[in-house]
Amino acid sequence: MSLLYEGKAKRIFTTEEENVLKVEYKDEVTAGNGAKKDHLPGKGRLNNLITSKIFEYLNDQGLKSHFIERISETEQIVEQVEIIPLEVVVRNIAAGSITKRLGFEKGHKFNEPLVEFFYKNDDLNDPLITDAHIKVLEIADDKDIEALQSAALEINNHLQQLMSKMDLRLVDFKIEFGRTKYGNLILADEISPDTCRIWAQDSDENFDKDVYREDRGSIIDVYQSFLNKLEDIK
Amino acid sequence: MSLLYEGKAKRIFTTEEENVLKVEYKDEVTAGNGAKKDHLPGKGRLNNLITSKIFEYLNDQGLKSHFIERISETEQIVEQVEIIPLEVVVRNIAAGSITKRLGFEKGHKFNEPLVEFFYKNDDLNDPLITDAHIKVLEIADDKDIEALQSAALEINNHLQQLMSKMDLRLVDFKIEFGRTKYGNLILADEISPDTCRIWAQDSDENFDKDVYREDRGSIIDVYQSFLNKLEDIK
Repeated sequence: MSLLYEGKAKRIFTTEEENVLKVEYKDEVTAGNGAKKDHLPGKGRLNNLITSKIFEYLNDQGLKSHFIERISETEQIVEQVEIIPLEVVVRNIAAGSITKRLGFEKGHKFNEPLVEFFYKNDDLNDPLITDAHIKVLEIADDKDIEALQSAALEINNHLQQLMSKMDLRLVDFKIEFGRTKYGNLILADEISPDTCRIWAQDSDENFDKDVYREDRGSIIDVYQSFLNKLEDIK
Repeated sequence: MSLLYEGKAKRIFTTEEENVLKVEYKDEVTAGNGAKKDHLPGKGRLNNLITSKIFEYLNDQGLKSHFIERISETEQIVEQVEIIPLEVVVRNIAAGSITKRLGFEKGHKFNEPLVEFFYKNDDLNDPLITDAHIKVLEIADDKDIEALQSAALEINNHLQQLMSKMDLRLVDFKIEFGRTKYGNLILADEISPDTCRIWAQDSDENFDKDVYREDRGSIIDVYQSFLNKLEDIK
């Protein structure tokens, strides 16, 4: 196995099998595009266990992702895809950047889920982009944009139902998609409290990375309690 | 006549006639959302003369705007409209903010004109917004967004032809639209070297506010030379 890529929170390795990669979740946590950074033992295990559970859940709902299987506490096997350089964000409730960017009050409930695209580009600080930008940057065409948009909304429905079973609310989340060697667009990357904003049903108590971003306690405890809820679902 | 509104570069007055306003162009120039600011005698006259000429030209092409007539060197009469809080930007060539925001090289020619919408909101620094944001902010519905988009592209065609007759290139421009009391969306505000980026045919010599933004000479001279070219068109 050889290291293919190392990101802020994961290492990606090739495997002996063609088009199959191993993802190792690291014990690193970052926020603000790397401005805040810590080593937190146990974090990689939690992200790997949670992401695996959520991808399995989505798979049970008929929604295919790059996830194949979890092979250890910190590792999973995934299908190799070419990542589309877009962060697809779905917002059910206003929180985080959109409150500053557009002046929505934290907690404002959108009538319909709001889908946003950000250009994955560290040098440019992952800027918000429009459909027209996506086309002019030759990232995707109209048909693919439409497909990403509806996949994002479908995933939102499934995740909202999942969180509701856990007595939690899905505020917003970020997902990424990749193209398989057969040309199909499928869900990739991870879905965890690192990439979702999750509130308690009756308060804005966070079960997500905002606890780290805003120095409000141990995310190890918070992520473990999220994992417990996820494992307790009947 | 009573002052209805005073902006950075214009004063708007009511008139004795219902739904008719007087616009007085001031000798003020600002850049960077007011960060840079100067009083330049003669600037109001130039903007008023140029905007009037351009609105007359568009009118001759069958494109209706709020413009009724110029009544003095610094004043014009316009139809009262309710301004849609959007800055509609059309880009033919990359320059200015989009080079920093998305990494396009200055001078990159877009295959098709790129239309962008910015939310007119000084407190938020006029952020870029997507169609989904326009709807969630209840600024416009799908039908109106479509109408603004095609009007912007039509105006771009007319302005490109006009600039070409002046041996100039239209790099990009910003326009605003308003709704008349009959509910129609029409072009409003101004079109001048303050709101357009205009280059010489064979170089990137500016005939626009970049000269002021980048401290590269007298915009009074530059705007006067633009006006001369505009008046020389056969």
